[in-house]
Amino acid sequence: MDRLKEECGVFGIFNNKDAAALTALGLHALQHRGQEACGIVTFDEKKFHAERRLGLVGDNFTKGKILDKLPGSSAIGHNRYSTAGNNLIRNVQPFYADLHFGGIGIAHNGNLSNALYLRKELVKNGSIFQTTSDTETIVQLIAKSKRSKIIDRIIDALFKIQGGYALTLLLNNKLIGIRDPFGIRPLIIGKINKSYVLASESCALDIIGAKFIREIENGEIVIITEKGIESIKPFPKIKERPCIFEYIYFSRPDSIIKNTSFYEYRKKLGVELAKESHIESDLIIPVPDSGVPAAIGYSEQVKKNVQLGIIRNHYVGRTFIEPTQQIRSLGVKLKHNVNKTLIKNKSIILIDDSLVRGTTSVKIIKMLHEAGAKEVHLRIASPPIKFPDYYGVDTPNKNELLASKNNLDQMKKIVNAKSLKFLSIQGLYKAMGYESRNTSFPQFTDHCFTGDYPIKPLDANEKNFVDNQISFITSKS
Amino acid sequence: MDRLKEECGVFGIFNNKDAAALTALGLHALQHRGQEACGIVTFDEKKFHAERRLGLVGDNFTKGKILDKLPGSSAIGHNRYSTAGNNLIRNVQPFYADLHFGGIGIAHNGNLSNALYLRKELVKNGSIFQTTSDTETIVQLIAKSKRSKIIDRIIDALFKIQGGYALTLLLNNKLIGIRDPFGIRPLIIGKINKSYVLASESCALDIIGAKFIREIENGEIVIITEKGIESIKPFPKIKERPCIFEYIYFSRPDSIIKNTSFYEYRKKLGVELAKESHIESDLIIPVPDSGVPAAIGYSEQVKKNVQLGIIRNHYVGRTFIEPTQQIRSLGVKLKHNVNKTLIKNKSIILIDDSLVRGTTSVKIIKMLHEAGAKEVHLRIASPPIKFPDYYGVDTPNKNELLASKNNLDQMKKIVNAKSLKFLSIQGLYKAMGYESRNTSFPQFTDHCFTGDYPIKPLDANEKNFVDNQISFITSKS
Amino acid sequence: MDRLKEECGVFGIFNNKDAAALTALGLHALQHRGQEACGIVTFDEKKFHAERRLGLVGDNFTKGKILDKLPGSSAIGHNRYSTAGNNLIRNVQPFYADLHFGGIGIAHNGNLSNALYLRKELVKNGSIFQTTSDTETIVQLIAKSKRSKIIDRIIDALFKIQGGYALTLLLNNKLIGIRDPFGIRPLIIGKINKSYVLASESCALDIIGAKFIREIENGEIVIITEKGIESIKPFPKIKERPCIFEYIYFSRPDSIIKNTSFYEYRKKLGVELAKESHIESDLIIPVPDSGVPAAIGYSEQVKKNVQLGIIRNHYVGRTFIEPTQQIRSLGVKLKHNVNKTLIKNKSIILIDDSLVRGTTSVKIIKMLHEAGAKEVHLRIASPPIKFPDYYGVDTPNKNELLASKNNLDQMKKIVNAKSLKFLSIQGLYKAMGYESRNTSFPQFTDHCFTGDYPIKPLDANEKNFVDNQISFITSKS
Amino acid sequence: MDRLKEECGVFGIFNNKDAAALTALGLHALQHRGQEACGIVTFDEKKFHAERRLGLVGDNFTKGKILDKLPGSSAIGHNRYSTAGNNLIRNVQPFYADLHFGGIGIAHNGNLSNALYLRKELVKNGSIFQTTSDTETIVQLIAKSKRSKIIDRIIDALFKIQGGYALTLLLNNKLIGIRDPFGIRPLIIGKINKSYVLASESCALDIIGAKFIREIENGEIVIITEKGIESIKPFPKIKERPCIFEYIYFSRPDSIIKNTSFYEYRKKLGVELAKESHIESDLIIPVPDSGVPAAIGYSEQVKKNVQLGIIRNHYVGRTFIEPTQQIRSLGVKLKHNVNKTLIKNKSIILIDDSLVRGTTSVKIIKMLHEAGAKEVHLRIASPPIKFPDYYGVDTPNKNELLASKNNLDQMKKIVNAKSLKFLSIQGLYKAMGYESRNTSFPQFTDHCFTGDYPIKPLDANEKNFVDNQISFITSKS
Repeated sequence: MDRLKEECGVFGIFNNKDAAALTALGLHALQHRGQEACGIVTFDEKKFHAERRLGLVGDNFTKGKILDKLPGSSAIGHNRYSTAGNNLIRNVQPFYADLHFGGIGIAHNGNLSNALYLRKELVKNGSIFQTTSDTETIVQLIAKSKRSKIIDRIIDALFKIQGGYALTLLLNNKLIGIRDPFGIRPLIIGKINKSYVLASESCALDIIGAKFIREIENGEIVIITEKGIESIKPFPKIKERPCIFEYIYFSRPDSIIKNTSFYEYRKKLGVELAKESHIESDLIIPVPDSGVPAAIGYSEQVKKNVQLGIIRNHYVGRTFIEPTQQIRSLGVKLKHNVNKTLIKNKSIILIDDSLVRGTTSVKIIKMLHEAGAKEVHLRIASPPIKFPDYYGVDTPNKNELLASKNNLDQMKKIVNAKSLKFLSIQGLYKAMGYESRNTSFPQFTDHCFTGDYPIKPLDANEKNFVDNQISFITSKS
Repeated sequence: MDRLKEECGVFGIFNNKDAAALTALGLHALQHRGQEACGIVTFDEKKFHAERRLGLVGDNFTKGKILDKLPGSSAIGHNRYSTAGNNLIRNVQPFYADLHFGGIGIAHNGNLSNALYLRKELVKNGSIFQTTSDTETIVQLIAKSKRSKIIDRIIDALFKIQGGYALTLLLNNKLIGIRDPFGIRPLIIGKINKSYVLASESCALDIIGAKFIREIENGEIVIITEKGIESIKPFPKIKERPCIFEYIYFSRPDSIIKNTSFYEYRKKLGVELAKESHIESDLIIPVPDSGVPAAIGYSEQVKKNVQLGIIRNHYVGRTFIEPTQQIRSLGVKLKHNVNKTLIKNKSIILIDDSLVRGTTSVKIIKMLHEAGAKEVHLRIASPPIKFPDYYGVDTPNKNELLASKNNLDQMKKIVNAKSLKFLSIQGLYKAMGYESRNTSFPQFTDHCFTGDYPIKPLDANEKNFVDNQISFITSKS
Repeated sequence: MDRLKEECGVFGIFNNKDAAALTALGLHALQHRGQEACGIVTFDEKKFHAERRLGLVGDNFTKGKILDKLPGSSAIGHNRYSTAGNNLIRNVQPFYADLHFGGIGIAHNGNLSNALYLRKELVKNGSIFQTTSDTETIVQLIAKSKRSKIIDRIIDALFKIQGGYALTLLLNNKLIGIRDPFGIRPLIIGKINKSYVLASESCALDIIGAKFIREIENGEIVIITEKGIESIKPFPKIKERPCIFEYIYFSRPDSIIKNTSFYEYRKKLGVELAKESHIESDLIIPVPDSGVPAAIGYSEQVKKNVQLGIIRNHYVGRTFIEPTQQIRSLGVKLKHNVNKTLIKNKSIILIDDSLVRGTTSVKIIKMLHEAGAKEVHLRIASPPIKFPDYYGVDTPNKNELLASKNNLDQMKKIVNAKSLKFLSIQGLYKAMGYESRNTSFPQFTDHCFTGDYPIKPLDANEKNFVDNQISFITSKS
Repeated sequence: MDRLKEECGVFGIFNNKDAAALTALGLHALQHRGQEACGIVTFDEKKFHAERRLGLVGDNFTKGKILDKLPGSSAIGHNRYSTAGNNLIRNVQPFYADLHFGGIGIAHNGNLSNALYLRKELVKNGSIFQTTSDTETIVQLIAKSKRSKIIDRIIDALFKIQGGYALTLLLNNKLIGIRDPFGIRPLIIGKINKSYVLASESCALDIIGAKFIREIENGEIVIITEKGIESIKPFPKIKERPCIFEYIYFSRPDSIIKNTSFYEYRKKLGVELAKESHIESDLIIPVPDSGVPAAIGYSEQVKKNVQLGIIRNHYVGRTFIEPTQQIRSLGVKLKHNVNKTLIKNKSIILIDDSLVRGTTSVKIIKMLHEAGAKEVHLRIASPPIKFPDYYGVDTPNKNELLASKNNLDQMKKIVNAKSLKFLSIQGLYKAMGYESRNTSFPQFTDHCFTGDYPIKPLDANEKNFVDNQISFITSKS
């Protein structure tokens, strides 16, 4: 897929007799944040229970039979798409461990930028890791802490780790939510009847009918017990700097942040895009489904209707035919098809939310031309992506990012568009409601466009260590 | 699902060394016509080979391993959603039998309205059925025919059966396509290089890069051999009368019939709907994804943009949590969610392509009101559905059809809309490009709206026979 | 496996509320008669239910969940090992069909020697077969019979078929047991409380605590209804001629026929063998487990103890490692190993119940020599097998039978024994309690030793027809 | 099952290009030592590879496909039946970990008697365990050792652990075999071509054609590298004291130790038993298959043939029907049946190798009586088992051991035998070739008979700790 990928969605609920079922529903609403695997850990006042599966929530956590294996009134859950750690079942979250003070479950959205560095130290001192995931590093640090109170052990660990993280932790009498000091990854608090809920996005509250309470702040630890909510802020106070890609396309369009739905943020991106780079043409066509909200904003701005010129096949499974070379040369259209009679002899404005490798644009523009389109003007509702991410967004290597090696004119030629325009950085910040980007302390984590990284990624140097260290390939059944 | 359902998609290809792989691709493009099961039969000049599976094409026919089990240069394939015959694997098509003259594979889209009546006679004379599907009736009739030539045996059988059918048959040296005398179910001919292709819709040609040649005509038998195409028309010549629901929503929007895409037919339904029943409001919102094309047509007519007020979760699997009563009372939103900040305090025109049981409309309008919508005007881009189908469309019982028992005002109250309007029959025919409906011989099979059935359904009386006859419940592994 | 193989075990029970569970137990006791597949059909006064699985009874019919799918107070069951029809799930028995008069289930032990001949005729007249098994031929004949009463239809079919068969049939108000005119395959009647039971062997009565009533006679039809047992003998009366291999090794040693256990028959084979061909040696060693009873009889006769010189690994699964050529050259001992310290420098009498291809003997004698045995005298407790069977015993092709192409001396050299002796035909009949073989009408079906076939096998000529006719290869999931 | 159970079998091979395939064969030969799960770890000069499965070797490691996942020229393997640690897949061995110095794989036969005590300390200091097995404790100790050389770290760990253990370890350039100071569990060295092999028993050498070299001594560490074999003996020198149950029934009868097969040791147990307690009777019958070698020895001593009076069903799967109460009351004979016509009106000497709970004896004697046996004299070829084991034999709780709570006369009444005799301790040592038991330092670990434990089992006190600590219930798919 020619897309950036979110690494995960997390969920947690405390003191609710349907804890596992509600967690499954919450994860289902967050399914767009990770489709490789999912898991739930519950606590039933005596023991912890865990079920972790490859695949979708709806295919794995739907039956009474599996929910019966997850008794208890508190739960955390996790949807996984992950670069750190391969897709073996042993890396599926939530991670669980029996520590000296009792059990601990942890679900993590984000990525630590010094996990391997820390792992190396821990292994040298005798720790044995059972996964290749960075999440385990946090738990190993907690296990090693010399502090006596659990919260102090957790803070000990937080002071060592770096990167983007939104965590839900389940202990034997508390549910904890944590966001990293910059608030790169999102985490919100909701409430259903008397039960507090933690979730990556508000759509996970909507599905179960929970009310939105507030965001967890950047650098905040929220501890939920029978007595209620407690908040700790162990880090020096700084302004938040959330990941801009949540606004551009990770979050579900119906999720809401700061009183505005992501659908509306994206329409505004389309409005700004139209202001910057509109050109007369016969049709405005979004790349489905990613370009639709921006295209609607664009079309409102230029007062011309959107058209469904490209149709998406909703039944595309995870894998499909690896066609023979002969078949491949036919240019198989597994995922998209063009609405031929609409497109023929027309000039087209084609709108998408972003451009990563460019392969999708190349394919769709080729399809449009073959169907008889006169000319295609490609408009991208975000700036060119030039730099990789290290805090929880799965970006290709720098040299696979089309914009990192090519200028605008070269890209135009590669995708074979008549014209190509990106939204400017200023346009992006305007759409988000700011007059301009604060260059000394940007309002968003936007290094993929600007190269302005909030945290230095230490692990880049540790790659070799890992290749040697994690020598183990296993499968079970 | 509160939808009518198509019963099947069919595909066939002759004289192509990638026959099975191309059939899998064609079926993938036709996946919307049936998701319960799929199958492919090939002929390799010596033997027939078959693979039939429950589930999606993309999950079952994607690997070299399974395609290797389907050698041969000719193939037929089938996607199944079926009322006649339950979902046991033994009913999955294509059906295959070894007859005296050789093997025969058959894939069937449609429904025979006298299959049980014929089955009763056949069983009385010693035929043993291995499925509960009406498709086997056709093959049993062919087996029993006293004619010596295969084509004559097939024509013998066609003169006995009644109903809607589009058939692809694979024999040891020919591929045959057949449409019923009214042409109720669709079937087209395409060509890729020198290989002829049969398919339910043109999107199955597009996916493999085949060219559209022509529709098979109503009542026509097309025989494809190494020598080329031969056409036989054994029935008296009458005008075609295709199923109107292919236009309203079965066919994929990018499929094309009579030089127009179904997307454009549906936009015109929206245009007519707007002409008939527009009312001023703040927002025009389609029910996703069914109402989108009509909503775009509607919005063009009234010059006001469409908005994504309802978001659909694309990861809804086949089944999901059977929530406990407590959870059910929360009003779980598994499939749709409302874009709250957009909807609040707004008056809304809500557009869908049809209204079957009304349960979806009830649910969505409730959701809109809960999210703060001021008022909801429901607009349906087709007439009220009052009568069941017997020719291949899975309709609920008559008394489950909302429009068969309630007048407009009652329906409005049930769905809790401020106002409710359907497209008129005249509006429907206008959108299809006719001045008006030809009441003596309607241009479409439209009995679900009008009660005007083209063929009398004999099997209604045979229900008891079947319940006694098909006494067998089996499962294998 | 270098063994002849039984084709099947059958079971039936009438009027017992635990019908399916007792049938599963009965089939488990008959597991040695077929391990490829198993199935049960029940009737619950309204509908028939069937479950058919590949593999062992104990792996498939053990759970309440599957037995719950088999309600009803009458049942038939089948264990399958079969040459006629390959191992596809569609050939797994019992076979079931809905006929005009109602449902019919049938389980068959044996083989028809004119099934293909009859099939050809039936297909020519429009019958469609769903399996490649000869059992379906019987049902198709019943379906085609013009007689009005079911029993008359069955008799009609019996007059057409030839070969060896023990059948259990389940109809909607009766259980029927049938043996072929020669009584080649066994079938007995038992009773548990008020419920009649049919089974291939008495060990299937023992497992459920049922009492032995009597054998079904050769050519007899036994009809069990609520009124009790009725017997019909439609064929001319002849003497029975049961298959000698049931005595030599098919039946379980604890099963009893004519007041004697098969263990005792086999010990007597060993006694006669010792009388005919004893030679002085250090050790008497059976091939485990097949040669054990004969070796015990032999050792009693010569007053010298049996020793376990060869140990069998009981965990040999169906398949095992396909070792690389290098590994194969190591002479891997997957199934047997020699007790080295016992064997060393000893002369050995090695006893087995039969010699088929000779591959086992070759392998074991090689093993003994490698372990240091001084000399090996092979003694076989039955005559040389020279002719194939057509009535339900799976024999290799004639030219794979070691004794059909080689004389005694040649065989001795092939297996590399110091001496080789078979039991004589006269010794065989003496062990069975007869003075001598009745050459005009032998007491047993013994053509594998003598070439004296009771029925001419018509199907030998039909092989080509079948290869063309049954052109279908399929798999489902 | 009314048997003591061996906890495991281990295997290892170094420097052989078929390492994984030969390991699979070796484990297959050792299948009797554990049937719950099996696993193999290989090293391919760069990475370690592991496959671990529930079930038999022959069902899991038979295909090229799985062996292809296990490249490399060195391997260790493990068959598991285990009390310590439940049957979750995460407990299946070999255990593997990435330590600071590189990867380590370990396969363990035996049981540590202070594992929980050590685990508690380790967890307190921050170690995270991923299994509930005692084997991981060894690896965690190795990881924590402050010594720099790997061998020194291993010796560090060995000085801390107590109990019975035979270990195979795979490191990145060596294969290591270790036996505990008493040599309770067995481990031998073999050689095939130039490759050294480690195995629990000699039958695992026979299957691959490897030569027996020698036993690893008690307390010895054997290190196999490219340079050859090196031996280290870190413990003070004491005499070996192997587990007597290997002789009585764990080891396969064809395995050899000290130049004698276990078949011969067991025959001698039968000889001594006959000397001590013979009585006149009609038949000598072994409980199959456990009592057969002793019965042969017994019958040689009294010059009277053994008879197969009890027949075992070899197709008993892991689980079988959970019969309804009605069926249970029938006294279902799933596993054994009596040879009725042999037994009737006979007095019987019934011989078994041991008596654990007594349930098998009760059942079989009841069966014999029901089949008409006149009287049954039970003879057990080992002394009464009165004490549980803690070093790798799975014994029931003390109060489930029939002999721990009942005297001879009570036991006779419970099993309903006419007479009951056990082999005496002195008879046992005589059969093993000693004049008598050395009471100050017994020649065998025989505490189950004598209460004379070689090592104090510390963990008995740690049970509560574990129940709290291992709070995690998990399942994955």
